[in-house]
Amino acid sequence: MLERADRLAALVAERELDCFLVSDLVNVQYLTGFGGTNGACICGAEVRVFLTDFRYTERAETEVEGWDVVTVKDDWLGGMAERLVGKVGFEDHHMSVRAKSKLEEKLADGVSLEGAGGTVEKLRRVKDEAELAAITAAAALADEAWGWALERGLAGRTELDVARAVEAWMREQGAEPSFPTIVAAGPNGALPHAEPGEREIGRGELVVFDMGAKLDRYCSDGTRTFATGEPGEAAREIYEIVRGAQAAALTAVSAEARAEDVDTVARERIAAAGYGETFGHGLGHGVGLEVHEEPRVSQRSEDVLAAGEVVTIEPGIYLAGELGVRIEDLVVVTEDGHRNLSRLPKDLQLVD
Amino acid sequence: MLERADRLAALVAERELDCFLVSDLVNVQYLTGFGGTNGACICGAEVRVFLTDFRYTERAETEVEGWDVVTVKDDWLGGMAERLVGKVGFEDHHMSVRAKSKLEEKLADGVSLEGAGGTVEKLRRVKDEAELAAITAAAALADEAWGWALERGLAGRTELDVARAVEAWMREQGAEPSFPTIVAAGPNGALPHAEPGEREIGRGELVVFDMGAKLDRYCSDGTRTFATGEPGEAAREIYEIVRGAQAAALTAVSAEARAEDVDTVARERIAAAGYGETFGHGLGHGVGLEVHEEPRVSQRSEDVLAAGEVVTIEPGIYLAGELGVRIEDLVVVTEDGHRNLSRLPKDLQLVD
Repeated sequence: MLERADRLAALVAERELDCFLVSDLVNVQYLTGFGGTNGACICGAEVRVFLTDFRYTERAETEVEGWDVVTVKDDWLGGMAERLVGKVGFEDHHMSVRAKSKLEEKLADGVSLEGAGGTVEKLRRVKDEAELAAITAAAALADEAWGWALERGLAGRTELDVARAVEAWMREQGAEPSFPTIVAAGPNGALPHAEPGEREIGRGELVVFDMGAKLDRYCSDGTRTFATGEPGEAAREIYEIVRGAQAAALTAVSAEARAEDVDTVARERIAAAGYGETFGHGLGHGVGLEVHEEPRVSQRSEDVLAAGEVVTIEPGIYLAGELGVRIEDLVVVTEDGHRNLSRLPKDLQLVD
Repeated sequence: MLERADRLAALVAERELDCFLVSDLVNVQYLTGFGGTNGACICGAEVRVFLTDFRYTERAETEVEGWDVVTVKDDWLGGMAERLVGKVGFEDHHMSVRAKSKLEEKLADGVSLEGAGGTVEKLRRVKDEAELAAITAAAALADEAWGWALERGLAGRTELDVARAVEAWMREQGAEPSFPTIVAAGPNGALPHAEPGEREIGRGELVVFDMGAKLDRYCSDGTRTFATGEPGEAAREIYEIVRGAQAAALTAVSAEARAEDVDTVARERIAAAGYGETFGHGLGHGVGLEVHEEPRVSQRSEDVLAAGEVVTIEPGIYLAGELGVRIEDLVVVTEDGHRNLSRLPKDLQLVD
């Protein structure tokens, strides 16, 4: 984990900064290992300072190795300010306007702040072995959760009942949902971010089931669309278009691929089938400590994929008032392709 | 709910602003009723504009009454900017430095931003009848949850098992925890923000059990310290000091009371008993849509209580390596005192 701070320190030097103030808690967690709810850290060539408050002193001393742990008493921003030197990179995409202005008032002469938000997020893109192991375990647990939920059955239950029960099962396994589970049947499937509701899942419906587990701090994310019995020819046709687009996009994933191009592969397949307008979201996103992080896989992305990144590939077709289909895998980018962490079958499953 | 926007508009006029941009999602929810994850609103004398993205258009049309619902396509900040006029109050305690700077680039000539964060939080302090009903219901559910957990038993289980089980029970009732439940037994009780761990709860230990439910968007918060059988004379003595301090502080609660003075009542009782140094946190805080909100009840607070505010009263004594005691009620401030929403007994309960 100390190697992460070294990589940040190298970027700090490259940008001719004297140190970097990390205030975003997820970034702090990534760099230091701290898992509490209040912390910040300062990183430079010779500086590794971690700040927290009295509630977390003991915890920080256990979790945070290789950083000087400082407990700030009353004046949080003052505690930061007195440890900053020279030209300080700060997370301008995270720090509030008010906090920055108060922090500036407390800086010593000659100390200045320079917006450099997004720096740690870039470091977080490529996962190390321990991170990949955690994400792989989270994805495997989610696969088990789908198995459990299907065995219990979908048809005749409400979406909310299915979602709550599978989340309870995950918690019994010591995990938690990495985001609120989506169970969206029939016409509800046409809402890409539907909340599970009191509607009873019928027979012969498509059910979009989007779920992730969080285990040992790391997230998974995946989607399958199931059919509660034969859904009919039209639904099957839509399903196969999405399935083909998803498979094609997967073959486009590899180190050096432009994320936009991977998105284009799926988008063109769906457009060629006449459903271009119905695929209204990006193809995918990075997953790690957060369920949505860099890189972005979309038409607006300028990211180039690299080996060790973990991204979702999740095209969909949404027909308002009728149905939705989304198929999402979580994959590790490799030098010459990808390693798929999602093990559930992708041919249309007829389930109870 | 529209009356909330009117109150904000009155403050906007009072401060000689032309409109107010609300970007903090909880504040947006308070003003508009919107429950999704991306929204903002603009409020002025004649303006009620609610902005969201395509994912939530349908939901907003159901939930958000009395506001013009606008779906912003690609450029979120641009969508805000084109609807702002004159001198605009904005939430500088929430908006990031980068977002503000990008927003400013998009503003028309003659439009300017003025930091006014905290304005909606002040409106949120005094609860209306519907809010009080929701908080009362959440507190009642939490009381039931304690009952359920005690019936199941504490001694011989791990803290984590007790916490997970009671949270699962809450979710079965359609609620969720308003914060991660604290179950801290024996020496762990001395950590005010302990995370429940794998330590088995013994017999004759004090167990700090801090829990809240979130129901219909509103939170509760409360703590009881139980004994798993006779904890001994020393523990009982500490318990009674905290209980006395808590009771004394409750009698000091009423509209017009200075929050600092209420804190002082409890703090002096604990100090007089010789444990002043061990009560290292504030006496309480407001509770509503968030489990920690205004007003603050502490030595650093400048708040004056008002009828309809909902606050916790939660003194504690923490003896490192030995034990902790905290007793916390959730109360509604009334003209001449308070109404207690916490119904569990406060004499020391010997439990299984």
